[in-house]
Amino acid sequence: MKLATIRTADGTRAVKLDGDRLLDVGYPDLGALLADPEGLAAATAVGADATAYDAAAADFAPVVPHPSKVICVGHNYTNHIKEMGRDLPSYPTLFPKFADSLIGANDDVARPEETDALDWEVELVIVIGSDVRRATDEQAEAAIAGFTVMNDISVRDWQFRTIEWTQGKIWDSSTPVGPYLTTPDEVGGVRPALQVTTTVDGEVMQDDNTGTLLFDPVALVKYVSTVIRLRPGDLIATGTPAGVGHARDPKVYLDGGQQVVVTVEGLGSCVNTIVKGG
Amino acid sequence: MKLATIRTADGTRAVKLDGDRLLDVGYPDLGALLADPEGLAAATAVGADATAYDAAAADFAPVVPHPSKVICVGHNYTNHIKEMGRDLPSYPTLFPKFADSLIGANDDVARPEETDALDWEVELVIVIGSDVRRATDEQAEAAIAGFTVMNDISVRDWQFRTIEWTQGKIWDSSTPVGPYLTTPDEVGGVRPALQVTTTVDGEVMQDDNTGTLLFDPVALVKYVSTVIRLRPGDLIATGTPAGVGHARDPKVYLDGGQQVVVTVEGLGSCVNTIVKGG
Repeated sequence: MKLATIRTADGTRAVKLDGDRLLDVGYPDLGALLADPEGLAAATAVGADATAYDAAAADFAPVVPHPSKVICVGHNYTNHIKEMGRDLPSYPTLFPKFADSLIGANDDVARPEETDALDWEVELVIVIGSDVRRATDEQAEAAIAGFTVMNDISVRDWQFRTIEWTQGKIWDSSTPVGPYLTTPDEVGGVRPALQVTTTVDGEVMQDDNTGTLLFDPVALVKYVSTVIRLRPGDLIATGTPAGVGHARDPKVYLDGGQQVVVTVEGLGSCVNTIVKGG
Repeated sequence: MKLATIRTADGTRAVKLDGDRLLDVGYPDLGALLADPEGLAAATAVGADATAYDAAAADFAPVVPHPSKVICVGHNYTNHIKEMGRDLPSYPTLFPKFADSLIGANDDVARPEETDALDWEVELVIVIGSDVRRATDEQAEAAIAGFTVMNDISVRDWQFRTIEWTQGKIWDSSTPVGPYLTTPDEVGGVRPALQVTTTVDGEVMQDDNTGTLLFDPVALVKYVSTVIRLRPGDLIATGTPAGVGHARDPKVYLDGGQQVVVTVEGLGSCVNTIVKGG
C-alpha cells in the first residue's frame, strides 16, 4: 500500500494510491492516520467508491506534515564515509530536523541568499507507526509503518561553521519528503535492499543500495528509541551514500533553475526545482 | 509578570503568579497562550477573582509543554569555552532538543541505565512569543516573550560517541524547564545580566552571569531565525557557563538520590532529584 498526504482546496487529506487515482482514506493527513491504531487497517479497507483525486495532478504535502521529531543519521553508507575521509563508526551519528524544515515531494527548494553551498543527499526514510521506547528487535520491526524518500538538503557552509551540523541541516522549508509512505510488504520487508539515486539536471550524482547500510532500519529504531520515545509519524532518515556535491573535486553545489531528483527504488521520487533567494 | 503551565486534576492550565497564588488565565498551557496574539494581554488583565491555585503546592509542567522546536546553544560563556579547551567561536553552535525531552521544573530526573555520565548545565532560556523569520534587531527584541530556566541534562558518554552531540542531548524526559516564564520587564529587558548557578546536594558547581554571554538573546533570535522560522512557544537555550561535571578533574557525574538545583536570578529554580534507572 502507498499512502500520501495531499493538499486540496479543503486542506490536506490522507490518501492511498489506487492505479492512477488517490482515494481519500478519511484522515486529514498521515500523521493523524498513524496516530490512530486502526488507521492503517482503515486505509486498507477503503474501497474504490471513496472520494478520489487524480494522482497525476496531486499536490503532495510532506508525507507527515508535523512529525514530533525528525532524526537523521550520518555516516551510514560505507562509500560516503570513505569520501568524507572518516573511519567506520561504532555508533550511528544522529542529527535533527524539525517539522518546519520539511516540504512536499515536488515543492520548489529555496536556495537561501545566505549560502552558495546548497547540496543534495538522497535518503531512505523510516516512518514510525507506533509508540516505542527501548524497542526490542520485534518491537522495532513492528514500529516501522513504512518507508519514504527524502532529499536531506544541506547548507554546507553553515553546517561546517561549528562542530555541530544542526545549523546546516534544519533550514526552513528546505527538505522534500515523500511523495508516498510505502508499506514494508511492497519492498521486501523492514530491511529492504533498494537502489537510491540522485540526479541533477539529469546527471547521476549518487547511486547506491540500502542493502549496504551499516545500521539497518530495525537497528536504527532500536538505537534511537533507546534515547527518546518514538511516536507515530516520527521520521528517521537513514543517511546518504557517496556522491554529494561537497565531496566532489571541484565541489559542486545547487544553483537556481536546476532540477534535483532523488529516487528510492520502489518508493518514488522527490523532484524539485531550485529557486534562488527565499 | 510570571506565567507557568501547571498540572491539575483537569489537565494542564496556564497560570500567572499573584503573591502566593497562581491565577488561571484561561488557556490550557503557555503554548496555547503564546499562540494567541492577545494571550499575554489577556493574562495581564486577569484579576484576583480568577480561579486560583496554591503556588506552594503547584505541580509544574514544562513551561511550554510542546514547543515546535527547542534550539540549544553551546560555547556561549567565555569561561566554559576555555574549560572545554576551545577557541572563542565566530558563530553560535546549535544543537537540538525535542518536546519529548522536556520535564517540569520539579520532576524527578531519570539517570538512564545506559549511562554513568549524567551531567548538569544551567541555562537561561528564551521563550519566543511571535512568529519570526530573518528577524531584524527590533523584530528579535519584540519576539522575546520572556525567559525561563533549564537544566540541559547531558548524557556525556553518548554525547561524545560521535562527532555530533545530539544523542547525548535529547534523552526522553531528561530536561527540566521552568517553573516560570518571566517577562523581560521584570529582569531589566531582553539582554538581562542575571546570575546563573548550579548546586548539587548544596555544593555550588556553576556560578556566572548572563551578562557575559558571547551571543546575547537578541543576537540568538536573529541568528536562529535566519535558519528557521521561530514560532510562539519555541525555546532557545542560551548555553551554560563553566563548572560542568564532565570538565572537572576528576570528572563528577550525577548519581541516584542527589538533588540538583539550577537557578537564574529573578527567574526561579529547577529543583530535581536524580532517580536511577528509567
